[in-house]
Amino acid sequence: MAVIVPFESPSGASIDGLVGLVAADMERVNATILSRTGSDVTMIPEVANHLISSGGKRLRPMLTLAMAHLTEYSGDGHVKLAAAVEFMHTATLLHDDVVDESEMRRGKLSARMLWGNEASVLVGDFLLGQAFRMMVEVGSLRALDILSAAAATIAEGEVMQLAAAKNTATTEDEYLAVIRGKTAELFAAACEVGPVLADRPKAEQTASRSFGMNLGIAFQLVDDVLDYGGKAAKLGKNVGDDFREGKITLPVVLAFRRGSDSERAFWIKSLERGEINDSDLDHAIGLMNKHRALEDTISRAHHYGAMAVDALALFPASPMKTALEQVVAFCLARSH
Amino acid sequence: MAVIVPFESPSGASIDGLVGLVAADMERVNATILSRTGSDVTMIPEVANHLISSGGKRLRPMLTLAMAHLTEYSGDGHVKLAAAVEFMHTATLLHDDVVDESEMRRGKLSARMLWGNEASVLVGDFLLGQAFRMMVEVGSLRALDILSAAAATIAEGEVMQLAAAKNTATTEDEYLAVIRGKTAELFAAACEVGPVLADRPKAEQTASRSFGMNLGIAFQLVDDVLDYGGKAAKLGKNVGDDFREGKITLPVVLAFRRGSDSERAFWIKSLERGEINDSDLDHAIGLMNKHRALEDTISRAHHYGAMAVDALALFPASPMKTALEQVVAFCLARSH
Repeated sequence: MAVIVPFESPSGASIDGLVGLVAADMERVNATILSRTGSDVTMIPEVANHLISSGGKRLRPMLTLAMAHLTEYSGDGHVKLAAAVEFMHTATLLHDDVVDESEMRRGKLSARMLWGNEASVLVGDFLLGQAFRMMVEVGSLRALDILSAAAATIAEGEVMQLAAAKNTATTEDEYLAVIRGKTAELFAAACEVGPVLADRPKAEQTASRSFGMNLGIAFQLVDDVLDYGGKAAKLGKNVGDDFREGKITLPVVLAFRRGSDSERAFWIKSLERGEINDSDLDHAIGLMNKHRALEDTISRAHHYGAMAVDALALFPASPMKTALEQVVAFCLARSH
Repeated sequence: MAVIVPFESPSGASIDGLVGLVAADMERVNATILSRTGSDVTMIPEVANHLISSGGKRLRPMLTLAMAHLTEYSGDGHVKLAAAVEFMHTATLLHDDVVDESEMRRGKLSARMLWGNEASVLVGDFLLGQAFRMMVEVGSLRALDILSAAAATIAEGEVMQLAAAKNTATTEDEYLAVIRGKTAELFAAACEVGPVLADRPKAEQTASRSFGMNLGIAFQLVDDVLDYGGKAAKLGKNVGDDFREGKITLPVVLAFRRGSDSERAFWIKSLERGEINDSDLDHAIGLMNKHRALEDTISRAHHYGAMAVDALALFPASPMKTALEQVVAFCLARSH
């Protein structure tokens, strides 16, 4: 069921370069994360660490560190901002699990299955509060502005998704607006604060933001595809989750638009009305393959990946720049 | 079923003085609230305004304005900070309703009953993000520090309450730690940022914080009493909600400690195991009356109210100071 798409240069599609270049800083980020989830209220570190230590790649905080390096920032603030970005991400995951009623996250039972919705909501709030405290400690009002705007935009994107939920008439543009908000905005903010801390020219800040935004869109589109044919074990979620939850993603948008009346009736029945039987997921994937919906979603992802790479063009060649280009390739290659 | 307690000076127990003195600023706060709940995602203003315009007293933002006046702040920042405080409060209410599975809030169906848990979680997140954006716009890192620390502490208090939930062995000290976090901290922060903006001496900042903290504790204790015998219509919630939810509040803590073995068995059965029949609420109130648990909770509230008034002592006499003293009396007099 894996999706096979042509991918030009699978060599160099790796995050290893990035991981190596930010390793020393990441150790400090991890120590910060550990200390800032501490609380006398033992349920807080339990819930937070269940998710934080469950083997996420920590791509977002690595991006903050990377862009700070790329723009030759020499201070300390990027470590706390990177930890804050990871906290914002973790808070979003905790709240998402409640919203989506998810049972699994990263191959483990989700926090809400273990501690309940209540703890997921409240520990998420705690982490958001801690994230803002760390940002305040760094003391850059510009960085605070970027990250607090991102927090509002992320929530707005999630509400947008909720409003569009189960609506098969969602357009590709509407769907893009949703994922810009709910996913790409945090990538963009995580990247933008690096050159902001380094007090680099506006053009470099904008370029960094653009890199993050387009990488984030590509990342989400590939995620959408993986949900219909990916390596579930590796992802830690089940193939078909989006389908069962009636989530409208780009593969659905494309298959619906390109489908016949009877096919559209199938999408409406399963996604809008939630009437799903055992063979329906296979049927859905069959329709997506028939209309090249998964392949074309990957093509769209490559488009945004290319924009991300181009956004980096104004930075001179460096090992970090190469590593960031490889991260784009890695995110796209996950679909293999 | 109303609780009758001696109250020394019911005259002057009013928020009218405060309301009058901050009226002009409150208009600007209300306009700010309205504009900052705006979003192209129509569900956001719908959900937010359902709660924000449902007739809360807006006591917390009024306190921010009042303390800014009292300390002769001459700028504009207090308006945005007051709106941010109200957003933080509203976000907490939205998330609380999900955590408590509440059906009513301020006499109306709760947002989660009308739009679902998902919308309540996400719109809460959006309001928190907008609150931080406004704080950033004001540009005071000290105020940001105070309010972001409050956000983390509030969530911590809520998790603490969750962990103590249904545990009849909770001590009075443990319960005080919970309400310091979940309720009083926001009162404290709302008051503290006034003199911080005005750049007043540390002693005035601490006094303002102390006023808010003790007022907040008194406020919560009276709320706890009202839940066992208050004016439900006025409160907009039902008498006995805390009891039915197995919430441990000070009246329960006192009645449990002072009760016989068979009475303790009753509290454990109803609050820890949730086995409640129609006559149990009356029985619970009977036990509380027998042990003076409601009266003594009110006495405790008066103790914190007195501390709040004393905290104001270092400020010279002024109409605003008198109005703030009357607010304390008002909060206590709600129990009549």
